[in-house]
Amino acid sequence: MTHTRPLILVTNDDGVHAPGLHKLIEAARLHGDVIAVAPDLPQSGMSSAITVNSALFVKEHHGYSEGIRVYSVNGKPVDCVKLALRSITPRRPDLVLSGINHGSNAGNSVVYSGTMGAASEGCLARIPSIGFSLTDHSMTADFGPGLPFIDTIIRSVLASGLPDGICLNVNIPARCEPLGIKVVRAARGYWTEEYKEYTSPHGQPFYWLQGDFVNIDEGDSETDEYWLGRQYVTVVPYRPEHNEPRHVLQSLAEMLGV
Amino acid sequence: MTHTRPLILVTNDDGVHAPGLHKLIEAARLHGDVIAVAPDLPQSGMSSAITVNSALFVKEHHGYSEGIRVYSVNGKPVDCVKLALRSITPRRPDLVLSGINHGSNAGNSVVYSGTMGAASEGCLARIPSIGFSLTDHSMTADFGPGLPFIDTIIRSVLASGLPDGICLNVNIPARCEPLGIKVVRAARGYWTEEYKEYTSPHGQPFYWLQGDFVNIDEGDSETDEYWLGRQYVTVVPYRPEHNEPRHVLQSLAEMLGV
Repeated sequence: MTHTRPLILVTNDDGVHAPGLHKLIEAARLHGDVIAVAPDLPQSGMSSAITVNSALFVKEHHGYSEGIRVYSVNGKPVDCVKLALRSITPRRPDLVLSGINHGSNAGNSVVYSGTMGAASEGCLARIPSIGFSLTDHSMTADFGPGLPFIDTIIRSVLASGLPDGICLNVNIPARCEPLGIKVVRAARGYWTEEYKEYTSPHGQPFYWLQGDFVNIDEGDSETDEYWLGRQYVTVVPYRPEHNEPRHVLQSLAEMLGV
Repeated sequence: MTHTRPLILVTNDDGVHAPGLHKLIEAARLHGDVIAVAPDLPQSGMSSAITVNSALFVKEHHGYSEGIRVYSVNGKPVDCVKLALRSITPRRPDLVLSGINHGSNAGNSVVYSGTMGAASEGCLARIPSIGFSLTDHSMTADFGPGLPFIDTIIRSVLASGLPDGICLNVNIPARCEPLGIKVVRAARGYWTEEYKEYTSPHGQPFYWLQGDFVNIDEGDSETDEYWLGRQYVTVVPYRPEHNEPRHVLQSLAEMLGV
């Protein structure tokens, strides 16, 4: 049996009601039939977390136009991708898209990102997968200027596929017309001043995550942070099953005396 | 000011009451002063997830011997490491240890593992970090035969450090006397038959994660799964901030026409 239109699985980490998800569904619909399976609640910062100790329920959301089906799951982004592939999509999707995230996933944010957790899961299932993020946390962020670039990237990946084992982390600069696309590596860095301290009405201290990313590759024109700051869309290849080269294994073996 | 003994931060993903955590505290105590900061509840499968939208509380647990302090946090493994470094340890630890996990983190389990999420976080903070896992999920698992190997690895890493940007994923074969240590790469693979389906008393379908790892590197003697099956402790270097080589960026740029 042949299929005239690609099947595209769409998910996100901001939840089924986030505007960025619906922008991505619209963008995907130009290229194929769409099944969206997203968390029922916001799941930012969930990385590749999975639900191992509780039951997952799937709920269909109605009222979408032809060629679009939307579901929510009481789980995390990776749960949505796993459950979609196992029990919701009628066949193997041709593409997995995650986003559009409300907020940047450049630099080492990819480690914590639920958006990229979902894209990684599609990649581990050997399906071309892309995570899209806009560098604006607001729920009223303007996704418009980035859409032509998203369209170009979806079209290219549907036509050519991706190298085996690699998915894409795409970040879009907010509040500007992007000037183009740069394929680069992720800026390395760390987070500083990570927690704000409070005292409860009962005198108990508590902590809330905040923090600023310190880019240790500041000024390096081969990195995503550099080009996002210059109004470019950045594409970073990401390999969930990465391994170190043999010389690293050898030096560790020597250190351990084995 | 000099310190005569190393300071070792210990955490896990099975929670503050898991026997594996306390075995690792004992193992670490032979090499330095220990501060353990672990989740108050089990957090298996939490990967590098962080708590972004709620408050974190720290609770001290008393009754430990001198040189050991134990805390729990109502969060995930990475929250424990971040909060420990920011607000609990009196100085920067010399080593971060995570585990001993009740269950294997070989193959691509590292993607989902909270044990390795915590080790990655120590590594991102530029502290030598190691995750330890035993290939036995039972809460009554016997950690004894693996302890001499854990001791060797801790001693080597305290003495020599680790290559910049790399942490270690150590897996220990259960129910045997390990024959030695192999430094190898992670077996690649995927999970199959991932969900068991049920029907609730009200007729509603629900799903529960299960699944078997299919090792696509079966028989490859350079992988962790191969040597775990042959009674060896495996050490896999893991780089949380990995990037692809330049030729991959170039081929993607050509594909996107940029």
